[in-house]
Amino acid sequence: MSTKAYAAFNAVDPLGPHTIERRNLDVNDVFIKIDYCGVCHSDLHTAQSDWGPTNYPAVPGHEIVGRVEAVGSEVTKYKVGDLVGVGCLVESCKHCHSCDEDLEQYCENGFTGTYNSKNSKYGGITYGGYSENIVVHEDFVLSVPTNLPLDAVAPLLCAGITTWSPLRHWNVKKGDKVGIIGLGGLGHMGVKFAKAMGAHVVMITTSESKGADAMKLGADEVLISKDPEQMKQHNYSFDFLLNTIPVAHDVNPYLLLLKLDKTMCMVGAIEPLPGVHGGVLINKRRNIAGSLIGGIKETQEMLDFCGEHNIVSDVEVIRMNEINEAYVRMQNSDVKYRFVIDLKTL
Amino acid sequence: MSTKAYAAFNAVDPLGPHTIERRNLDVNDVFIKIDYCGVCHSDLHTAQSDWGPTNYPAVPGHEIVGRVEAVGSEVTKYKVGDLVGVGCLVESCKHCHSCDEDLEQYCENGFTGTYNSKNSKYGGITYGGYSENIVVHEDFVLSVPTNLPLDAVAPLLCAGITTWSPLRHWNVKKGDKVGIIGLGGLGHMGVKFAKAMGAHVVMITTSESKGADAMKLGADEVLISKDPEQMKQHNYSFDFLLNTIPVAHDVNPYLLLLKLDKTMCMVGAIEPLPGVHGGVLINKRRNIAGSLIGGIKETQEMLDFCGEHNIVSDVEVIRMNEINEAYVRMQNSDVKYRFVIDLKTL
Repeated sequence: MSTKAYAAFNAVDPLGPHTIERRNLDVNDVFIKIDYCGVCHSDLHTAQSDWGPTNYPAVPGHEIVGRVEAVGSEVTKYKVGDLVGVGCLVESCKHCHSCDEDLEQYCENGFTGTYNSKNSKYGGITYGGYSENIVVHEDFVLSVPTNLPLDAVAPLLCAGITTWSPLRHWNVKKGDKVGIIGLGGLGHMGVKFAKAMGAHVVMITTSESKGADAMKLGADEVLISKDPEQMKQHNYSFDFLLNTIPVAHDVNPYLLLLKLDKTMCMVGAIEPLPGVHGGVLINKRRNIAGSLIGGIKETQEMLDFCGEHNIVSDVEVIRMNEINEAYVRMQNSDVKYRFVIDLKTL
Repeated sequence: MSTKAYAAFNAVDPLGPHTIERRNLDVNDVFIKIDYCGVCHSDLHTAQSDWGPTNYPAVPGHEIVGRVEAVGSEVTKYKVGDLVGVGCLVESCKHCHSCDEDLEQYCENGFTGTYNSKNSKYGGITYGGYSENIVVHEDFVLSVPTNLPLDAVAPLLCAGITTWSPLRHWNVKKGDKVGIIGLGGLGHMGVKFAKAMGAHVVMITTSESKGADAMKLGADEVLISKDPEQMKQHNYSFDFLLNTIPVAHDVNPYLLLLKLDKTMCMVGAIEPLPGVHGGVLINKRRNIAGSLIGGIKETQEMLDFCGEHNIVSDVEVIRMNEINEAYVRMQNSDVKYRFVIDLKTL
């Protein structure tokens, strides 16, 4: 079986329009008709070759939801008509220590990304969700709860799991004081999840208006980080900090907010952080760490939790031909909080 | 009871020679005749007011061993003639969360340092171990094993516990691959402790000759950090890194050595670290943390362990009047691995 997807990325693809061949359906593959795909900052970084040379033509998109249209002969987990999702990973080695522990995102032999990634099994480059359909091994397909608005589920597959995984890994629980630093695609999910886990959630932001928005999303309190007096009042009081700021910044004022032995986890800034102060770490045995998306098992757990707690992203649905405008607005933080492409418009 | 100690610090004390009054012996106090006192980098920093204005006249020294000469009327833990030690702390609030957990070094109301610290209970400033004697509340006095050379025990009270505490806190155990970064007063104790805990110990150093020295101290392997090829071979292989480098440096090459979820703990560099890379943390959920000396309970555990395993520091014993020369040599890393003052020479 061979089906066609289209590079939905013409405007920034220097090679112009393309027709891209999806791979044949293998025995464990699921063929998914895509309904919606979220727009992640990674998509833009890839479009612009910010992270090294992109393999053009590129089809970004790793916040994918849709329905199963066909399954390979040995597929057992899904059947035609099932509501499913695909996140950032479509393959991993499945035999390293990380894969053994359901942490495919840390696969020691390198996972296969949903787009712009070398496909070690079938050759060529992977193409993502700005497309009518996608073919994925059943082990990397997620089951989507049927009680949620499908467009608003899409961002859970990246923005959702990226915040869920560290909140779970560092064991956020009822009564913890948790700070979510930055309110965007990641931060707004961090607020919703931490709240649903029972934490006292503090939105830490430079912006009064973002603070007010966070309260509407469920935050219990707002801390304006550019006010040294407010920061001082929260000194040494947090059990966990989730730092979603997507660019390099001075992390020391945030580290001072942590109690003894507690951790600030970075999920946004994939770049050198200026001057982390050794004394701030030493003085209270504080930790700074990072976390990368999440494994398939925990992504499923997150989706199930979202179904039970009615949690979805706040989204703005766009047409495919509005993508470049959306990129510009996303760069200006002018979206609450995630663009999602309606693939019917492709 | 009032006894006299002498500021052994004339050469760098701008006020010249002084006679310093020790406080009267309170009911829970132990009066210790000092035999030996180790020379810590902190002593020099205090002498030079590197960490803010020092209260001159200052008596440094917080690696103290000696014998009990008198005890207050309610002292129960020690008796005259006991072999004892005093480390970096002589008082804490005893009612905060940290003190409750035997982590007085992180006392939320601030511990009282052994020297140059405001003495909230008795007034004035604390004076340390470059002295004939010291008066300390029994709760901050340690019992010293009798089977060890006393001069070589002294540095255990700071250099020892500073490395012991993080190795224990991060649960270093048999079979772990542990890297000790830097070979000085702290590093050489890190090698001895990690080895005694059953770890495979790798000395990570820029210097071939320090590497050879570390092997004599018990290291299993040497990794020359300025050789990118060697560093690459050890990529993603360490269970724990203890970073004893006392100054700011690029930590990213070391962080890359850590396995998934593992930690590098800083104990030396109390200053901003240039450009900790967010991606290096995120990519393998790595942690960077700090650790400060240790609590009284764990200091006692360390001393007991040293008694059982015959572990002491490698020291060079000096006379009191050689202290300024020792400071210069210490700054040039020209000591294996700790100067210890013989207080008989005062």
